[in-house]
Amino acid sequence: MSELRKDPIVERWVIISDDPVRSPALVGQTGQGEPGGLCPFCPGNEHLCPPEILANRPNDSSPNDPQWNLRVIPSRSPLLVVEEEYKRMGEGLYDKITGVGANEVIIETPRHETRQGRMSVPEFENLFWAYRDRIIDLKKDARMRYVLIYKNSGSFSGATLDHTYSLLMALPIVPRSILDEIEGAKKHFHYKERCIFCDVVRQEIQLETRVVCESDEFLAIEPFAPRLPFETWVLPKRHVPRFENIEPREIHDLACLFKEVLCRLDAGLNCPSYNYYIHTAPFGNECDPYFHWHIEILPRLVPRTGLEWGSELYLNSTPPEEAARFLRLLVV
Amino acid sequence: MSELRKDPIVERWVIISDDPVRSPALVGQTGQGEPGGLCPFCPGNEHLCPPEILANRPNDSSPNDPQWNLRVIPSRSPLLVVEEEYKRMGEGLYDKITGVGANEVIIETPRHETRQGRMSVPEFENLFWAYRDRIIDLKKDARMRYVLIYKNSGSFSGATLDHTYSLLMALPIVPRSILDEIEGAKKHFHYKERCIFCDVVRQEIQLETRVVCESDEFLAIEPFAPRLPFETWVLPKRHVPRFENIEPREIHDLACLFKEVLCRLDAGLNCPSYNYYIHTAPFGNECDPYFHWHIEILPRLVPRTGLEWGSELYLNSTPPEEAARFLRLLVV
Repeated sequence: MSELRKDPIVERWVIISDDPVRSPALVGQTGQGEPGGLCPFCPGNEHLCPPEILANRPNDSSPNDPQWNLRVIPSRSPLLVVEEEYKRMGEGLYDKITGVGANEVIIETPRHETRQGRMSVPEFENLFWAYRDRIIDLKKDARMRYVLIYKNSGSFSGATLDHTYSLLMALPIVPRSILDEIEGAKKHFHYKERCIFCDVVRQEIQLETRVVCESDEFLAIEPFAPRLPFETWVLPKRHVPRFENIEPREIHDLACLFKEVLCRLDAGLNCPSYNYYIHTAPFGNECDPYFHWHIEILPRLVPRTGLEWGSELYLNSTPPEEAARFLRLLVV
Repeated sequence: MSELRKDPIVERWVIISDDPVRSPALVGQTGQGEPGGLCPFCPGNEHLCPPEILANRPNDSSPNDPQWNLRVIPSRSPLLVVEEEYKRMGEGLYDKITGVGANEVIIETPRHETRQGRMSVPEFENLFWAYRDRIIDLKKDARMRYVLIYKNSGSFSGATLDHTYSLLMALPIVPRSILDEIEGAKKHFHYKERCIFCDVVRQEIQLETRVVCESDEFLAIEPFAPRLPFETWVLPKRHVPRFENIEPREIHDLACLFKEVLCRLDAGLNCPSYNYYIHTAPFGNECDPYFHWHIEILPRLVPRTGLEWGSELYLNSTPPEEAARFLRLLVV
């Protein structure tokens, strides 16, 4: 049983679960996942996973058969489930919500590939299509407010399996990071009547110093105030509030650029652990004039210290201009 | 040269430094610090550190001599320095401030002690006096807005040396975490005319389920919505906005309780890596009616994943009621 609890002071949500499978001792071990080294994400081992929700299958193979290019499955020990009744409750000062939502795993390729950057462009296209399709499907559930798509890769990222995969969490709340971005973007919009992300894109293209690479539709930059060394953002150049409205030509363009960014990070930083996540507008359309979807990639080269935990003030010893120059000049 | 840069969207500050000593490859290595295994924090090695700012010395020993109980020194590679001229600058859309501030290191004991919990109660008293005295001194510089005191202990915490030490950063800005707490506490105060931290203290004492231990003046709890397993907060029971106003009898009481909390965490979790930090009201007194200083201790048992980075939604598999019960029942 899980529940969402809200910190009464800073209104930060936490999912509290008492699932022993997710105990501290087990979280963070990467590996094959099953005794004997059987990878549950490899073809032929579909029986080790819950039945698939969505799959990209080349011909007329049946669900849960080994013929597939990409599969989406529910988490084996979900924290949030759609079957749960949506209930908000109080406990004195405190607020909580029943664990309603969804946890899904996107198995990105049938090959036992540990480095996502080695996937082909069509595999990246499949991946972005799957992200889009799952958001559109989960949006139909009126209790959901947000779908967060994220990735853990490598032992410092919290990944629990080697075979490359992404994660998805559908939530009955809008997470704080998104609310913070909305608030900042709204303030800028009210003041200037422009999208702040569009302004960032324009300024970075003009300056060039923080650009990693660029395509017709997308821009990859080291942001002006990166929390971590080599933090990299990928933004659509045109104003698009939500990821799920991505168009076919954009998916191909994004697949090429995203693969290039990951290859540059892998080549330059010796295949680092990393996380990424998609920030897209919450369900509903009130943020459409000022929200602009994007992906933030965080190589995990340095540990988080008491400074970052205690202040959300980050200390970064790699200026983004130097990081961008280094990544740009690599031959990949 | 360092500077503070502000993310234009979420207004998060980052210290950008191009000091090669702090490059990703070096950050996070714990050890003796010097080739040959010389600990720069041990008595006799004072010459390896910058001259002391403050020391607790038993008799009439001279500054920087080996006779001391506790020493405060400037960081060997400071990111922020008081000698810097305070200047706010724009760069197109973006804002930055020169690297004005201070970075100090508090060497907590002359013994080469790696576990803070093994320090004596008088050593903890010295430590809290030093925290207080440094805040009071740094407050005199009108350019400073906040002093963050924090601790990294163990290899997953970002600690760079084994010998137990605390860190201090004086800042020309108020960090976002503090602004968030102020905003939440202010909202509660306007609605109820009560301090939310006082309300939390009252409710937790009454409920008992999340209490780890308690003294005359202080309360240690597992908070209702902990980000991490065994996250522990220490709060004064009476309403006190700022740490530096702590009274002598409170320092002794806090030293006893804090040592007990650390011993329980060490005993129960097998000497985990941890961070802690003091949240106290910013300089000036406008938050005094609703801010309430406290210490947050974060054992570092699990890695931070893309979920936490991307959403500030935390996933915690140890309910605080279970964690508190476990810590309470330990014999230490």
